[in-house]
Amino acid sequence: QIFAFALRVLAGVKDDLRGRRVVVTAGGTREPIDPVRYVGNRSSGKQGYAFAAEAAARGAEVTVVSANVSLPAPAGVAVVAVETTGQLRSATLAAAEGADVIVMAAAPADYRPAAVAVDKIKKADVGDALTLSLVANPDIAAELGAAKPPGQILVAFAAETRDTARHARAKLVAKRADLIVANEVGDGRGFAVDDNAVVVYDARGAAAEISSRPKAEVAAAVWDLIVSRMA
Amino acid sequence: QIFAFALRVLAGVKDDLRGRRVVVTAGGTREPIDPVRYVGNRSSGKQGYAFAAEAAARGAEVTVVSANVSLPAPAGVAVVAVETTGQLRSATLAAAEGADVIVMAAAPADYRPAAVAVDKIKKADVGDALTLSLVANPDIAAELGAAKPPGQILVAFAAETRDTARHARAKLVAKRADLIVANEVGDGRGFAVDDNAVVVYDARGAAAEISSRPKAEVAAAVWDLIVSRMA
Repeated sequence: QIFAFALRVLAGVKDDLRGRRVVVTAGGTREPIDPVRYVGNRSSGKQGYAFAAEAAARGAEVTVVSANVSLPAPAGVAVVAVETTGQLRSATLAAAEGADVIVMAAAPADYRPAAVAVDKIKKADVGDALTLSLVANPDIAAELGAAKPPGQILVAFAAETRDTARHARAKLVAKRADLIVANEVGDGRGFAVDDNAVVVYDARGAAAEISSRPKAEVAAAVWDLIVSRMA
Repeated sequence: QIFAFALRVLAGVKDDLRGRRVVVTAGGTREPIDPVRYVGNRSSGKQGYAFAAEAAARGAEVTVVSANVSLPAPAGVAVVAVETTGQLRSATLAAAEGADVIVMAAAPADYRPAAVAVDKIKKADVGDALTLSLVANPDIAAELGAAKPPGQILVAFAAETRDTARHARAKLVAKRADLIVANEVGDGRGFAVDDNAVVVYDARGAAAEISSRPKAEVAAAVWDLIVSRMA
């Protein structure tokens, strides 16, 4: 074990999350319309899995609540698979108890169909137009922020197509998060690609600008910021 | 090459699609609501990729039109990646020219949002309820059936939650398909799992019942039926 630790230090891997409990959410939730169709979110889970892998490498005990991710689980991480925002909420609230850090990298669907059809909706029955009524899902990050115990660090995300800084600052307050990791998405940025560029905000403003780099390196840089804020 | 062929015969692999051109569609299309959200279909692409892999193993020149599949491409198969039903349509119509067999294993979204929001829809702007207006997508299988040249075989699919036989027979006629591969989905059947059970219909009725087995074996059994109908 000492030898393994020495190797890790020589390899430049930090050990600064040893003994810490970390929860990471990853992927995008899906809300069923009927047994075949759903409303989904584009998140691939790559950035979330990178956060989980980095935390495990630094010694944390990591639970990933994983929504529809088709990636291999990172080494040494417990994966709880979920599909909907309701399931993501239950699994994350359960895992969050006693956690030191919660990293909400998943993209939960904000809305779900007001009613789920038991059988497949048939075009022959419905015709050429279909109106879907959606209702708002619970805001998991805000719920975690409102119930946050002293010492726990909540990291939320803002994936925006415009006015990213403004939305990120508003989210920091609304969700009582300690950090917001904001990125611009759309036009090939952010989703399902291997690189990411983010700005991290805290209560004082922009805490760090992390220019475009592999998602593993983004995760490492954000973990440095998180660790510097831990008691 | 003769040695490789002998090995394949000894291994029980048929060579009965040698010199044939095959198009397989796989996966499920996604229709954007905004840059972040989409309406999707549950198909994982496993059954479609199994059809493609089996056809390639039997000697065919195979193009897979692949909608949002996160699986490695089968060996020796050309993959055309698409996202929406409109893209699936263009790519499949182009690939279908001169093809001997078209296997429509993909689940195209039947409906797409009437308008796509340029920017992410914000819950703060929209509130607790959101109404989505969807319009019907083109029916690719019916279009291929209507334009089918002599000798080309069109295999369509019916993934149903009830009345599967009735829906399958209606689809056979409506799409002018030569075979319909019908399966029941929902409650853990059909989607994203490794086994599948199907009934194959032709103009005379149920041509074969293929009980639950690995998707590769389902593909092999259906290819036997297709080959028996080829000129």
